Amino acid sequence: MNEILDHRLRSAWTPEAGNAAPLPPHAVSWLTRRIGPLSPSVPAAEPAFTVPPSGLPTAAHAALAEVVGSDHVLDGESERLGRAGGLSYLDLLRRRHPGDLAVPDAVVVPGDPDEVQRVVDVCSAHDIAVVPFGGGTSVVGGVAALRGGKPAVIALDLERLDRLVSVDATSRLAVFQAGVTGPEAQRRLAAHGFTLGHVPQSFERATLGGFAATRSAGQASAGYGRFEDMVQGVRLATPAGPWRLGVAPASAAGPDLRALAVGSEGTLGVITEVTVRVRPLPEREHYEGFVLKGWRHAVALVRMLAQNGLSADVTRVSDVDETAVSLALKGGLATKALRGYLTARGVHEPCLLILGWHGHAPQRARARKLLKGAGAVSLGKAPGQAWRKGRFAGPRQRDALLDLGVCVETLETATHWSRIGELYDSVRAALRGALDRPLVMCHISHTYETGASLYFTVLAARDPHDPFGQWERAKRAASEAISEGGRGTISHHHAVGVDHAPYLPAEIGDVGMAVLAAAKRAADPKGILNPGKLGLPDTEDGADEPR
Amino acid sequence: MNEILDHRLRSAWTPEAGNAAPLPPHAVSWLTRRIGPLSPSVPAAEPAFTVPPSGLPTAAHAALAEVVGSDHVLDGESERLGRAGGLSYLDLLRRRHPGDLAVPDAVVVPGDPDEVQRVVDVCSAHDIAVVPFGGGTSVVGGVAALRGGKPAVIALDLERLDRLVSVDATSRLAVFQAGVTGPEAQRRLAAHGFTLGHVPQSFERATLGGFAATRSAGQASAGYGRFEDMVQGVRLATPAGPWRLGVAPASAAGPDLRALAVGSEGTLGVITEVTVRVRPLPEREHYEGFVLKGWRHAVALVRMLAQNGLSADVTRVSDVDETAVSLALKGGLATKALRGYLTARGVHEPCLLILGWHGHAPQRARARKLLKGAGAVSLGKAPGQAWRKGRFAGPRQRDALLDLGVCVETLETATHWSRIGELYDSVRAALRGALDRPLVMCHISHTYETGASLYFTVLAARDPHDPFGQWERAKRAASEAISEGGRGTISHHHAVGVDHAPYLPAEIGDVGMAVLAAAKRAADPKGILNPGKLGLPDTEDGADEPR
Repeated sequence: MNEILDHRLRSAWTPEAGNAAPLPPHAVSWLTRRIGPLSPSVPAAEPAFTVPPSGLPTAAHAALAEVVGSDHVLDGESERLGRAGGLSYLDLLRRRHPGDLAVPDAVVVPGDPDEVQRVVDVCSAHDIAVVPFGGGTSVVGGVAALRGGKPAVIALDLERLDRLVSVDATSRLAVFQAGVTGPEAQRRLAAHGFTLGHVPQSFERATLGGFAATRSAGQASAGYGRFEDMVQGVRLATPAGPWRLGVAPASAAGPDLRALAVGSEGTLGVITEVTVRVRPLPEREHYEGFVLKGWRHAVALVRMLAQNGLSADVTRVSDVDETAVSLALKGGLATKALRGYLTARGVHEPCLLILGWHGHAPQRARARKLLKGAGAVSLGKAPGQAWRKGRFAGPRQRDALLDLGVCVETLETATHWSRIGELYDSVRAALRGALDRPLVMCHISHTYETGASLYFTVLAARDPHDPFGQWERAKRAASEAISEGGRGTISHHHAVGVDHAPYLPAEIGDVGMAVLAAAKRAADPKGILNPGKLGLPDTEDGADEPR
Repeated sequence: MNEILDHRLRSAWTPEAGNAAPLPPHAVSWLTRRIGPLSPSVPAAEPAFTVPPSGLPTAAHAALAEVVGSDHVLDGESERLGRAGGLSYLDLLRRRHPGDLAVPDAVVVPGDPDEVQRVVDVCSAHDIAVVPFGGGTSVVGGVAALRGGKPAVIALDLERLDRLVSVDATSRLAVFQAGVTGPEAQRRLAAHGFTLGHVPQSFERATLGGFAATRSAGQASAGYGRFEDMVQGVRLATPAGPWRLGVAPASAAGPDLRALAVGSEGTLGVITEVTVRVRPLPEREHYEGFVLKGWRHAVALVRMLAQNGLSADVTRVSDVDETAVSLALKGGLATKALRGYLTARGVHEPCLLILGWHGHAPQRARARKLLKGAGAVSLGKAPGQAWRKGRFAGPRQRDALLDLGVCVETLETATHWSRIGELYDSVRAALRGALDRPLVMCHISHTYETGASLYFTVLAARDPHDPFGQWERAKRAASEAISEGGRGTISHHHAVGVDHAPYLPAEIGDVGMAVLAAAKRAADPKGILNPGKLGLPDTEDGADEPR
């Protein structure tokens, strides 16, 4: 087996050394007191799974091997298991409680955009479903290996599309192949003095193609924008033929079809290249922490920053519960001292604000003045640096929590400022109503002039008898709270995949669903691309005509 | 006839008092020396046109009258002529050289978004084509009253959709009905302390619905963004039913369908409401002028401003020819003195830069420092104020130039910074090759981190024997120069309409055209909406299947 693939497969599959981050004893006992007794579990060993034999027809296998070489059509059990789903809580659970896991019939690993087009053509000719697979970090079922009524499904792994194609320093543009990961993109751009500035939590493993396909937003979105703001051009392989978009920084040449390709989650075409706007590496980064007095006040302050052009590149504020949990899990004397200090300063409901500045010294000075004038307590660099150091650790901590018997998941939404309070209350109430003694934490990590995201983290004692149903009910309650009356978007940056599909029609309307389905029929007439995602109909039978 | 409509009709039709701005004698003689002898012409009087009788079937007329009231179904000749096309040079020529002018069979003027939906429903049931009509300022044939194979076509005039529906000061959002004009929007927002900041040259007459439908960009786009950046939500009436989009400032809930509705030019639905991001009225506006040394240097400087976050809200730089023409047309002693001053300062190829700051004093100080360090000569406030005062006068000056026998038109494009020079040279060469002794001027008025727009103004002695063919050939040459090899976008902010349709496939690809056509079939199955625009197929016969 390919060594690189093998490495990734293992790291996706099991909490390997250095991957799981066990909680310190005081944190475990605090957590147990807070959410109740836990029933620890360990990951199932791989052999516990019965992987069905590959259903890829011999002729299709041969045709695919002719395109990519037989070394790059993988149909061993472990390779196929490695692309069976993403990294949602339910995905992780499925790997601990073997059941009906959708496993691709083969993994095909083309070497360049032209080979991707030819793979798509072969799959179209042989009526094989295709699931584009980048970093495999979807938390919404975006890479579930669904067949959509086809006889077989392949995972189209973009790992070998790993080139920085070109850099245009004058225009501040870089062309990347779709399989380049976050760290690789940063490393290669740094050699040219540039940065992308896109650092979502999935950064370490996710790919630029995946960022584009899912409308990713990174932790520095307040400064660098969402990934869709960075995308200036995109190249796709579709069953209807190759598709390139983006000749100018802006255009009025009809609707911006880049916005249709970006966010299409592999349903319209396989993104093979992205042209992104880059920026010079900042001369200096400055991360710092503040404590604000209560959630409402905190929301008002980050709104003021956003509406006055003073948002730091990273702007992130935790609610009272999330702030309390981070203090509790940290523990120790320093934490006790901090609590005392805050009480003395009149801060009874502390909300932690992290600001990360990449340059922008004048704005930083103005922001500090605004914050201090509003009673914010500066904590200096330490909390900012600590957050920065641990900012990709969430997924690893989750493995440790799962071992402990915790139900742990995140969900996110966004709305306009005037509805933030209502949305926050509704989602918390929904989660508290659906789970027993849950710990519900929230932060705002993406701010805009007109609104912000809300990112919830939920912990509860896992129900050992019905672990899937437990979370499915909670997720449904939260999603309905978001969706009802258009309170917020069903996803601010996690995308739709399978999990959010039931809530998309409420957000984009029946006409929107019909338009999306029609666009898919045009680009993918046989419906081979990423079946079941975005709630698009599988077949060609016209059941998806406008209602 | 409705008094307001009558007023607009006349102002669209003839250069009324205060509308035409005759050129001073020295300007006329300078122009004649420069582009050659002219053959003056005057507008044809209205009776010179033979308007065919309305072909609107009686049943459809009755059904429409039932929705909007019989007073709002207008089928008089002058009302219909008033919505026969927009304001391109060819549109204006057609009114001076009567020929095959496409005239709508009736003008229907609904009173609110629900009535628009019902009008669309009636037209769908009766198979009548619908051309949405806002300010009627399209310069690309976007409101041409084409039938698209239907027995009749109506102009759906949105003038009565003139309400500011709501203001959300916390979220900085305003909901407007689609027929509100630029000045009205500004006036109503100012009462709440806000501004939209969208001031295209069509500002005085164009509507918010039109801005959205065409992806308009205003003169202050460097500061306030393009209109599509302001649009947070949109409401449309489509034959497939009502359609609303936009619940959050940002989302990852599938592709951003707002970007499909915006720029759809009435082909997918009639925009009836737009939710826009607004900003506080600036405390202070400061317009100023600089002279830069030559075009290449000028381009490099506005690029540096854009890439360092120092673009003024209005950032506009003219090339050597445009700068020379504005000095020549102005004339007088002050101009002579300026020339002397510039020569003394070593500026032999002056390029005029206008910066308009709406607040942003710190950025202004840094930009001034950067410009002065690069040898820019400050001209102080006067040129900035003069530009600001005359910035909507272009269309009126054009009427005067037409009277003089001048062929006068503008065209625009955009590309990335590294290709600006090539695009500029190619378009100028194409126009000079296609016209005899033309005056070709250019400016950059929209800058981005990765590129900029180029806006060309062309003057030539009108060919009295073939005025249409003369411009059609020049436009084709310029469009091919833009389109070839993806040098630039076929339109940065004028949209596609009829005139740019032949160049759209090269820009968005066959797959893009197929996707657009499919989206149209879903939203508008009978193809009644704005036939012939965007180059979308008219009929339902499947000739538009993916190639």
